[in-house]
Amino acid sequence: MPASTTVRRLADRARYDRATLDAILDGAYVAHVGVVVDGAPVVLPFACARVGDELVLHGSNRAGTLTSIADGTPVCATVTLVDGLVLARSGFHSSMNYRSAAIHGVARVISDPVEKARLLDAVIDRLLPGRRAQIRGTTQGELEATLVAALPLTTFSAKVRSGGPKDAPEDLSATGIWGGVIPLVTSFGEPIPDAATAPGVPAPSISR
Amino acid sequence: MPASTTVRRLADRARYDRATLDAILDGAYVAHVGVVVDGAPVVLPFACARVGDELVLHGSNRAGTLTSIADGTPVCATVTLVDGLVLARSGFHSSMNYRSAAIHGVARVISDPVEKARLLDAVIDRLLPGRRAQIRGTTQGELEATLVAALPLTTFSAKVRSGGPKDAPEDLSATGIWGGVIPLVTSFGEPIPDAATAPGVPAPSISR
Repeated sequence: MPASTTVRRLADRARYDRATLDAILDGAYVAHVGVVVDGAPVVLPFACARVGDELVLHGSNRAGTLTSIADGTPVCATVTLVDGLVLARSGFHSSMNYRSAAIHGVARVISDPVEKARLLDAVIDRLLPGRRAQIRGTTQGELEATLVAALPLTTFSAKVRSGGPKDAPEDLSATGIWGGVIPLVTSFGEPIPDAATAPGVPAPSISR
Repeated sequence: MPASTTVRRLADRARYDRATLDAILDGAYVAHVGVVVDGAPVVLPFACARVGDELVLHGSNRAGTLTSIADGTPVCATVTLVDGLVLARSGFHSSMNYRSAAIHGVARVISDPVEKARLLDAVIDRLLPGRRAQIRGTTQGELEATLVAALPLTTFSAKVRSGGPKDAPEDLSATGIWGGVIPLVTSFGEPIPDAATAPGVPAPSISR
C-alpha cells in the first residue's frame, strides 16, 4: 500500500477492501476528480460509474479537464456519501457519518468503439437500471464525440464513519441534551416528464 | 478571471456571481478539497461551511492533508449538488442536473483563539442551525487540537445545469419514450437518539 493511499488520521475508520469500495462507488452519481494543472490542483465533478474493476468517466472530447485525465496525468478520483449528522454534546465531538473513497492512478482512454459503446451503455445502466433498453443505441458520430476514460481500482483507500457520537465522558452527565444521529437520505422525487413525452407514457420505474 | 477558473466546456452553464456560489456552498455539507502532494493530486472530503467571504475547513491539527492546506499550498475546493437525473431519448443526450462550484486559492490558518472559536461556532450553526445554543462551548484544549483554515471566495467558477433533456430533434418523434427529469432529493431521516439521551428529551428541530 503506497504511503499516499494509507489513511493516517483516525486509522480505525480506514478500509482497503474492494467490497467497501464498490459499495461506495455504486452508491454515488458523481466523483470529484483532481488533476494537477500548471502545478496547481483542479478538482471537477464527473458522472461516474464503476464497471468491473474500473471507474468509468466520460464527457466531450473537447472538455479540458477530461482531456488532461486522458493524457496519462496522475488522477485522484474521490467519492463521498454523507449518511448523517452526528450531534454530540460539544462541537468538538460532533461529526458526520460518511463513506468516502479515493482512487489514485492513471486512466486509460478507450479507443475501441465496441468497448466504448459497451462502457457507455454501462454508464446509462448505472444512471437508471433498465433505461438502456428503452432508448436507441449510441451512434458512430456520438461515439467519436465522446471521450471515455477508465481508472483502475487498484490503488485506493476508503474511510467510513458510522454510529452515534463519541462524547467526552464528562459531557455525558448532561442527559437533558439530545445526542445522536440525524440521518441524511437521498431519494428520488416525482418524475417530471418533458413536453415531448406523450400523455400516458409511464415514467421509468425508480427505486432507491 | 484567470484561465484556470474560466469554464470552457458548455460555457452557457457557467456562473461567476457570488449569489450563485453562496447558494451552492450553503447547500452542501462537504467540499472535495484537492492539493498537490509530491506532484500528484490528492482529493479528500472535508466538512465545510461558508462564513462570510470564506469557506471554512477544520479538522485535527494532526491531519495530513489539512496541514498541507494550512501550509500555503494551492488548493481547489469543489462542491457539487446533484439535483436530478435527466433522461433523454439517447444516452448521448442524457445528463444530470447539478450545481457545482470550484474555489481556487490559498487558505489562511486561523491562529487567534477568539476568531477560531467564532468560526467553529459558525460551523456548528451550519451543520444544524440552533444547535450551538444547546451545547457547551469549545474548550481551550479543543481549540488547540483543532486546525481551522479559511479559503477566500475570490477566485471561483460555478456551473449549473437545470431543466429537461435536450434531445436531438430526430429523436423527438419517439413520443412513446418517456423523457424528462427524475429529481434527486436529500432530506433528513428520523433522528436516532443515543443511549445517553434521557427519555423524553426532544430531538433538535430539523427542516430542509
